[in-house]
Amino acid sequence: MATITGVRVEDVRFPTSVTADGSDAMNKDGDYSAAYVVLETDAPDPGDPGSTLGGYGLTFTIGRGNDIVAEAARQQAAALVGRDVDELAADMGAVYRDLTSDSQMRWLGPEKGVVHLSLAAVLNAAWDLVARRAGKPLWRVLVDMTPEELVDVADLRYLSDALTREDALKILREREGTKQERIAHLERTGYPVYTTSAGWLGYSDAKLRRLCQEAVDAGYQHVKLKVGADLDEDVRRLAIAREVLGPDRALMIDANQVWDVPQAIEWMRELARFDPLWIEEPTSPDDILGHAAVRRAVAPVGVATGEHCHNRVMFKQLFQAEAIDYCQLDTGRLASINEIVAVLLLAAKFGVPVCPHAGGVGLCEMVQHVSVLDYVAIGGDLEGRVTEYVDHLHEHFTDPCVVADKGAGTAYVLPSLPGYSTQMYEDSLDRFRFPHGTYWVRDAPVRDTSEHVPH
Amino acid sequence: MATITGVRVEDVRFPTSVTADGSDAMNKDGDYSAAYVVLETDAPDPGDPGSTLGGYGLTFTIGRGNDIVAEAARQQAAALVGRDVDELAADMGAVYRDLTSDSQMRWLGPEKGVVHLSLAAVLNAAWDLVARRAGKPLWRVLVDMTPEELVDVADLRYLSDALTREDALKILREREGTKQERIAHLERTGYPVYTTSAGWLGYSDAKLRRLCQEAVDAGYQHVKLKVGADLDEDVRRLAIAREVLGPDRALMIDANQVWDVPQAIEWMRELARFDPLWIEEPTSPDDILGHAAVRRAVAPVGVATGEHCHNRVMFKQLFQAEAIDYCQLDTGRLASINEIVAVLLLAAKFGVPVCPHAGGVGLCEMVQHVSVLDYVAIGGDLEGRVTEYVDHLHEHFTDPCVVADKGAGTAYVLPSLPGYSTQMYEDSLDRFRFPHGTYWVRDAPVRDTSEHVPH
Repeated sequence: MATITGVRVEDVRFPTSVTADGSDAMNKDGDYSAAYVVLETDAPDPGDPGSTLGGYGLTFTIGRGNDIVAEAARQQAAALVGRDVDELAADMGAVYRDLTSDSQMRWLGPEKGVVHLSLAAVLNAAWDLVARRAGKPLWRVLVDMTPEELVDVADLRYLSDALTREDALKILREREGTKQERIAHLERTGYPVYTTSAGWLGYSDAKLRRLCQEAVDAGYQHVKLKVGADLDEDVRRLAIAREVLGPDRALMIDANQVWDVPQAIEWMRELARFDPLWIEEPTSPDDILGHAAVRRAVAPVGVATGEHCHNRVMFKQLFQAEAIDYCQLDTGRLASINEIVAVLLLAAKFGVPVCPHAGGVGLCEMVQHVSVLDYVAIGGDLEGRVTEYVDHLHEHFTDPCVVADKGAGTAYVLPSLPGYSTQMYEDSLDRFRFPHGTYWVRDAPVRDTSEHVPH
Repeated sequence: MATITGVRVEDVRFPTSVTADGSDAMNKDGDYSAAYVVLETDAPDPGDPGSTLGGYGLTFTIGRGNDIVAEAARQQAAALVGRDVDELAADMGAVYRDLTSDSQMRWLGPEKGVVHLSLAAVLNAAWDLVARRAGKPLWRVLVDMTPEELVDVADLRYLSDALTREDALKILREREGTKQERIAHLERTGYPVYTTSAGWLGYSDAKLRRLCQEAVDAGYQHVKLKVGADLDEDVRRLAIAREVLGPDRALMIDANQVWDVPQAIEWMRELARFDPLWIEEPTSPDDILGHAAVRRAVAPVGVATGEHCHNRVMFKQLFQAEAIDYCQLDTGRLASINEIVAVLLLAAKFGVPVCPHAGGVGLCEMVQHVSVLDYVAIGGDLEGRVTEYVDHLHEHFTDPCVVADKGAGTAYVLPSLPGYSTQMYEDSLDRFRFPHGTYWVRDAPVRDTSEHVPH
């Protein structure tokens, strides 16, 4: 017996804006942040003798307003206090339905924005807890489920015009017999990644060139750059990147929503000559039909989106409208595994490769579990798949993701410790808790860190 | 000179769940609530000698989480403190861009959910302030603008594939010469309304019959009922309503998002025999393509949606996909007049009648201004238009909306006092402020009013 005895929610912010890490055409000065949820229990932690079992989950934001997400998570997570962990683990579909059935909170979305981000944090913590209790990494908890168990976890509401429960079971049953082969393959090679670390918009040309070269030297076959602030600059920066990468490595570009649809098409006419694999977030993330129009116009360049795609209903339509070539679902924006499994099933049905969004804080730690789940039990293919990796802020996690080149290109090494890899060190929390952590009180450079002044 | 000297944000909740007012298939027990923003100034109020000028705005929620919206509004509104009212009034487009340009807060949407609801409240207060300063009702401030001024106010970002600035100016210029005729017409007849007060799902058959009869007696030509919880009950309730209304009055039905797409089509096959004018919110508000599929299947019954349509990009697509027959934009969900004007322009371009969502708290007070603006300066037509009216909670407003039958059916009487009609009595705030207002402390029936326990 293990009971959830309490909830702790932390507003944690890292001063990434100081170094322009994470800068792009829409988001010039984000402070990468996490609304971090801890579910405390009264049971011993099998993975850490002497400690009590906990569940650790987060969603990612870029600074101001992280406190608002944290407060929403606090209210939602309170419903889990007093619940038995093994009962939760036996029916995580019911846990999801419980947490989403509060119609008063639902009104604030529905299924989008702050209350959906916070729900992701709470459910991520619950899934972490379930995996720790089982003594397995989360991906293994999920691939060990039967097709029926995995479908019972998934939120299929509003999807039946595109994916029925029977469709979902059929997809999962087709993968069932060969799961072990794919696990063995990933244990040998890891799961392929690309890097975004080279291409933030705030970096100088010299730094861009150096980082591209370092990516090549580290074995990356894919590198992503930010574009969209200034066309001439984009042309100059892409020329540098293409020169360093050579003709055979893939170059992806990301506009972070800055264009209207006609502008995206026009701009891409100029950038197509650098042979990008995809243009990411060419316009508003809500514009399904706009993405479809851009995709028709810029082919053979692919269209990718998803980090701001707020729920499974939006992904359903992106697939139905043939609007995207790559599905970049986000583990902090979708409502955790329950909604992610639904999107992975939709993607498999429509034949769209899933290349999850990562970076931020803790997203890389989570997406490795999701990509392994997808390959082993749902999508069943690595063709056209490559998952994002960004090399910062991992030092705050007790079980950070690891990338290595095992001979098939740079890849995530399969997580092996119990959980969803999202526990942060208490020391990191003490330092970066906002606004009272030691960094913010003592070490922050003199600048405006006010909650209240947009700029 | 008038300076904004402070901001006050109130979490106000009314115990509507006690009487099942507002109950529907998705929202069984809402407590109608407002995140209420007051912009305080140091100038005298021309409309109320002896008082200082203020701006009063709100967004509507249904209870839990209203505190989260209020906190977001508090953070966003702080940027207005210290600003000169006349400068704001001269360029409300810039005010909108300032408030939406905080990329860190934008991440929490973008342009949806809590931070968009709260932005609506803040901007509604700013528009109220501008109209009070001008000594005019808000609708008159807006119809007195030139086409260029009105377009400068509108947020046209992400719309240029469907509506350019030139398209917008063309629409407005076509209406320019005949505005006064339409104002005169509305001053005679008012703006046509329908009532939803009869049809909440929690009402008994006897109460439903009595309220339908009262609506007929009061001159209503349109009555709306909630459906979607149980098909047999819907058939029984619609039979009662159609019997009382007779064959010529319009009956609308509202499913509040409870159906998947195939289920909506199947259910409507049974309900079509009661000749509904429209089926409202048949499925997820995010499902543009789903609404289009339902519309093709249920014609000639119309499809209506919009109260949960979170921004102009979604409305653009609803129009592009020919997904709806009626646009039910919401004054608490869209980012105030700046985004509403954009949607009214899109609707005019695509020829879709706008029948705004109302009810809740304060929505009726606001939509009368929006519908008048639409008829006088943008859409230019009353054909197929009818705006929602619900007869509760008006007693808390200092300038409540008034409906009357002036011979052309029940209609909103044109607001004549300065502002957006959204100021609440301080006595009402003192009574219903959550959780410390006298109602909640002293008078609330014994029940669980905890923030933290979904049910």
